[in-house]
Amino acid sequence: MSNFDTSMKEKVKEIEKIIDSFLPQECGYQKVVIQAMNYSVQAGGKRLRPMLMNETYRLFGGRGEEIKPFMAAMEMIHTYSLVHDDLPAMDNDEYRRGRKTTHVVYGEANAILAGDALLNYAFETAIKAFEIAEDFEPEKVNAMKEVSVARSLQVLARKAGIFGMIGGQTADIQAEEKECVSLEELVFIHKHKTAALIEASMMIGAILAGASLNEVRKIERCAYNVGLAFQIQDDILDVTGTQEELGKPIGSDEKNNKQTYVTLKGLEESRKEVERLSQEAVEILQEIPGDSSFLTELIHSLIYRTK
Amino acid sequence: MSNFDTSMKEKVKEIEKIIDSFLPQECGYQKVVIQAMNYSVQAGGKRLRPMLMNETYRLFGGRGEEIKPFMAAMEMIHTYSLVHDDLPAMDNDEYRRGRKTTHVVYGEANAILAGDALLNYAFETAIKAFEIAEDFEPEKVNAMKEVSVARSLQVLARKAGIFGMIGGQTADIQAEEKECVSLEELVFIHKHKTAALIEASMMIGAILAGASLNEVRKIERCAYNVGLAFQIQDDILDVTGTQEELGKPIGSDEKNNKQTYVTLKGLEESRKEVERLSQEAVEILQEIPGDSSFLTELIHSLIYRTK
Repeated sequence: MSNFDTSMKEKVKEIEKIIDSFLPQECGYQKVVIQAMNYSVQAGGKRLRPMLMNETYRLFGGRGEEIKPFMAAMEMIHTYSLVHDDLPAMDNDEYRRGRKTTHVVYGEANAILAGDALLNYAFETAIKAFEIAEDFEPEKVNAMKEVSVARSLQVLARKAGIFGMIGGQTADIQAEEKECVSLEELVFIHKHKTAALIEASMMIGAILAGASLNEVRKIERCAYNVGLAFQIQDDILDVTGTQEELGKPIGSDEKNNKQTYVTLKGLEESRKEVERLSQEAVEILQEIPGDSSFLTELIHSLIYRTK
Repeated sequence: MSNFDTSMKEKVKEIEKIIDSFLPQECGYQKVVIQAMNYSVQAGGKRLRPMLMNETYRLFGGRGEEIKPFMAAMEMIHTYSLVHDDLPAMDNDEYRRGRKTTHVVYGEANAILAGDALLNYAFETAIKAFEIAEDFEPEKVNAMKEVSVARSLQVLARKAGIFGMIGGQTADIQAEEKECVSLEELVFIHKHKTAALIEASMMIGAILAGASLNEVRKIERCAYNVGLAFQIQDDILDVTGTQEELGKPIGSDEKNNKQTYVTLKGLEESRKEVERLSQEAVEILQEIPGDSSFLTELIHSLIYRTK
């Protein structure tokens, strides 16, 4: 195992400890939905969004605790979107990462409520950052910290909502019903459905660490590139990957008559676009003083993954 | 029409103007879900929660604008809970207030997304209160206002979530599958499913107006009584009301074999409990300096309604 892989594994473990510390206790009359919430969050995954958030925070010199509730909140939002996406009325998926999906285990009504509860609990959790910011300098209201928590909440809500991730899911559902999807529409879907939460993760890391408005804007651009490249690579792998590598049937996009970056622009152009986007993302990171080597390697590993 | 009724009608109109001013514009690739969001919010209703919030705010001397996004946010949360409650996997209702429910008009997938989007947009909207608080005294960060906005967000998230409204819905779903429900369980359901958002509404009104911690606690108690009495009255009307008055079939609880306050405690005891709860609520209000006459009348009109 390479140094990077070992480091990744340790970081994922640390992040899962942080997330677990914010999950609700499974008790009371509402126990079954809390179990469904925790089952969904603890289903594993790359923990990519909280990792990008934390690494960006460190890059900008952040050393506090107020990042932690935001890391957990981000993973809760990502998870709720998967729980609702898997519902029979949506994608109707019975398995995710080799485990039964939430509605299969807990029933559809509880899965709807668990998704709602996770989204709500994400905000409930992120708001705890105010208390942490106050504890930091208990003798006075730490105005700068409070303002950056408020700004982070704003970014979280915006990027997760109808003008962010949910907007992308909406457009995706419409697109499935159409015969023809334009490149503009496809980029809209990728930008919102996938890139928006990655943008929010890296922006919140920067904001909480005290980055300037201009720096936050640059990080947003970097994250957009990462998100879009990640998604185009997904389209590429559906054509070039093997079923064994991906753990899911290949060519499923073509079979489902789904229009992707590859069907619209061709394989070569798609690869070039991934290259261009990732190059630009890394260049933005290099402009920031501080050690961005892990973050750069992380971005490369995401974009040039083979599974 | 009585003075009270005229006044109510005017207030509802004002509140609807405020809510409308925060609704998202229906455009872009996500247009259809934004339409579904607005269709749901604009379906009418008593606007009880924003009204209680605003009246409590006025009672404590609040005169600012930062209450407005919270009023709109509260109605969005109430609305999303109805949209998801009406889904086929939940109560499977085709009509609400004489209009087709959201999933009937826009399809199930869009209704799930519209509910998610409303919940998310509620927080996106409430967070705008930070900007308003800053505008209020633009030359400096208005620390007291900022802190009360943060505390209000905390209350909103808590009371709407798994330890508030969603918790009540969860317990309600479990109860429907049981043969026997205890009084304790029934009060849990009423407290969480119905009272929690009423508590949040009145508490946020008090907090934003600068009420003390002790006053906020009193208001929480008052609102709990209002919410519980409101729900017990609902159970009473199901037995004593006429179909014409209620606009829905009477005796539906008995027919559905649903256990209610009336089936567990009897009609006379239930009426006494409504009386006791409302009496206590009004007494709490009278302890607060300021004119609570409209709020008192509003509470009486809710609790002693005949439809």
